[in-house]
Amino acid sequence: MAEQYGAFTTGTGPPRIGVRTDDHVLDLTEAAHAQRRPYAHLVEGPTLNPLMAAGPEVWAQVREDVGRWEPTIALSDVTPHLPFEVADYVDFYSSENHAANVGRIFRPGGDPLPPNWKHLPIGYHGRAGTVVVSGTDVVRPRGQRKAPDDPAPTFGPTRRLDIEAEVGFVVGVPATRPVPLGDFDRHVFGVVLLNDWSARDIQAWEYVPLGPFLGKSFATSVSAWVTPLAALDGARTRPPARTGPLLPYLDDTGTPPWGLDLTLEVELNGTVVSRPPFATMYWTPAQQLAHLTVNGATLRTGDLFASGTVSGPAKDELGSLLELSWGGRDEIATGAGKRTFLEDGDEVVLRATATNGVRLGEVTGRIRPHGA
Amino acid sequence: MAEQYGAFTTGTGPPRIGVRTDDHVLDLTEAAHAQRRPYAHLVEGPTLNPLMAAGPEVWAQVREDVGRWEPTIALSDVTPHLPFEVADYVDFYSSENHAANVGRIFRPGGDPLPPNWKHLPIGYHGRAGTVVVSGTDVVRPRGQRKAPDDPAPTFGPTRRLDIEAEVGFVVGVPATRPVPLGDFDRHVFGVVLLNDWSARDIQAWEYVPLGPFLGKSFATSVSAWVTPLAALDGARTRPPARTGPLLPYLDDTGTPPWGLDLTLEVELNGTVVSRPPFATMYWTPAQQLAHLTVNGATLRTGDLFASGTVSGPAKDELGSLLELSWGGRDEIATGAGKRTFLEDGDEVVLRATATNGVRLGEVTGRIRPHGA
Repeated sequence: MAEQYGAFTTGTGPPRIGVRTDDHVLDLTEAAHAQRRPYAHLVEGPTLNPLMAAGPEVWAQVREDVGRWEPTIALSDVTPHLPFEVADYVDFYSSENHAANVGRIFRPGGDPLPPNWKHLPIGYHGRAGTVVVSGTDVVRPRGQRKAPDDPAPTFGPTRRLDIEAEVGFVVGVPATRPVPLGDFDRHVFGVVLLNDWSARDIQAWEYVPLGPFLGKSFATSVSAWVTPLAALDGARTRPPARTGPLLPYLDDTGTPPWGLDLTLEVELNGTVVSRPPFATMYWTPAQQLAHLTVNGATLRTGDLFASGTVSGPAKDELGSLLELSWGGRDEIATGAGKRTFLEDGDEVVLRATATNGVRLGEVTGRIRPHGA
Repeated sequence: MAEQYGAFTTGTGPPRIGVRTDDHVLDLTEAAHAQRRPYAHLVEGPTLNPLMAAGPEVWAQVREDVGRWEPTIALSDVTPHLPFEVADYVDFYSSENHAANVGRIFRPGGDPLPPNWKHLPIGYHGRAGTVVVSGTDVVRPRGQRKAPDDPAPTFGPTRRLDIEAEVGFVVGVPATRPVPLGDFDRHVFGVVLLNDWSARDIQAWEYVPLGPFLGKSFATSVSAWVTPLAALDGARTRPPARTGPLLPYLDDTGTPPWGLDLTLEVELNGTVVSRPPFATMYWTPAQQLAHLTVNGATLRTGDLFASGTVSGPAKDELGSLLELSWGGRDEIATGAGKRTFLEDGDEVVLRATATNGVRLGEVTGRIRPHGA
């Protein structure tokens, strides 16, 4: 297993920077100071942001050091914290299977994909302030819900609470100019797993014309441990063949590809219900970052952008319950009975392994009833 | 004129906190320390965030003090900075005239308003990292543009660069629970003018199904000076009569209303082209905040939410060039020739005055060509 970076405490005091390898953690804050490393001031905690801002040369130096140092703290003895301070959070929509499935479920009879889908990686801003670390309970949100046949919306707890299994990319080095495809790894520090919790009934009623808002903004969970992008070099792969021409800023045919061969795992109440293949994503994270910045939007350390729900073509490769239950029609067998959407008390775990053997940090969350 | 709060420098060194009255500024950082005021540590700069977080009792104490102290620095001698650190930025869509006009221009033949519009204040998250202070030049963004008749999108500078005249509300006191209508002024510190620059051709091509993204994310300008909410007490007014029933969390018939009687002014190249009346907004900022938090989304100090484009019913009360030119059909006379959308070099100034005589800080911006 490659090393992963995070923020942790073992008792009182502010979070320190830790490096996890399997089930042990190295206290990097302590080690860097004890060894008088030149980057010690960047790993004082409470978040990874100063280290993330320092850039690839420093990241490589740290990786080299931690490969020699022994992690001595048992993982079970540490309390993980949100590993980085989130600046802006953007969520993309880059799985063709997922986008087409959602189109078929929400807009039956129409084209499954909107006309812009093959021309640009569709994305939107989410709520940075409600990104939470793995292990944080998720309270069932309330809001306005209206089924197509209801005469008016009603208010109450969502009846269609869902997950979205995603991969998130964390920006380290800021940018004031557009980031071309080839500069992706000069800006992105690492990779997290991300669960973009979604209240489908709230979302369906609110999202036309300005996009998802309260259906998503109550919570987004990220793994406590960030896998450095460099650890995934051996998992790079070519994305699926493009079925339409790309504008030059998105055309990656001449550059080393930024597809990643990761297999995700969605576990619901102890049962693995899906294994979404990240290599099927139509748009790569390098294309997402190029698109996000091409209009002149600047990047800050801590900017987080997520892939969108990862869904493969097979029935057991879907990254949301919306798709797995086909809009609530089919039941899914879990370790605590059959489900269409999430019930109170349900626990979701996302995991991912790359073809080069590297694992991403897992992301877990349990549903708490409203008012509990 | 009521006092306004901001961050400023006069030479080198980090920004200090200033209080503007007309054309003079009080150095609050210095005055609070010299007078040994108990809140002195909250106004050390470089932003208003610590003061904003302290709550209404401290805000009132500061207002009382600054009413007695003489502002001695000429406004022309200070350089203003972004007055607060933006946490999350949300943009609403709460003018019925504006929403109906956009519907008529973009979706002719359909219903002007989407079916949810009278049930909830529609909103979405924008990019916090590209909120800039008044006076910052705005570089014309590039992106994918596709007119309905074009066979494919092309890439280049936007041809339909627009403004949106809005009023922004700045959260001071965080919240971990929904904020009911009656608690609005326990959380909101103050009010800014806001120009939500918009690239209409980029936006039109990208926004279905997940909402505006690159058409907005390149820049959002806010006034350098924040007017305390309490200074607008005398401008409170009842919002327009609601034409549909409201769910209880949005029903403000039993509470003192949070409509505000402000007249905005849109100046383009020295010519006032519009005077949008804020009192015509269908949804009040208190309803916006109640909606934003009703799903359990938490609030942070520095959260900024904007009203959406303010447009009145008359032709000279529209808050965007999209509406003033009716989708580019009609020309608008300005001090530098006729316009439909913005040309390079154009300067936009937004101002606002309340019925109680209080003025909001103005927000200005000049368009720079791409690559200049």
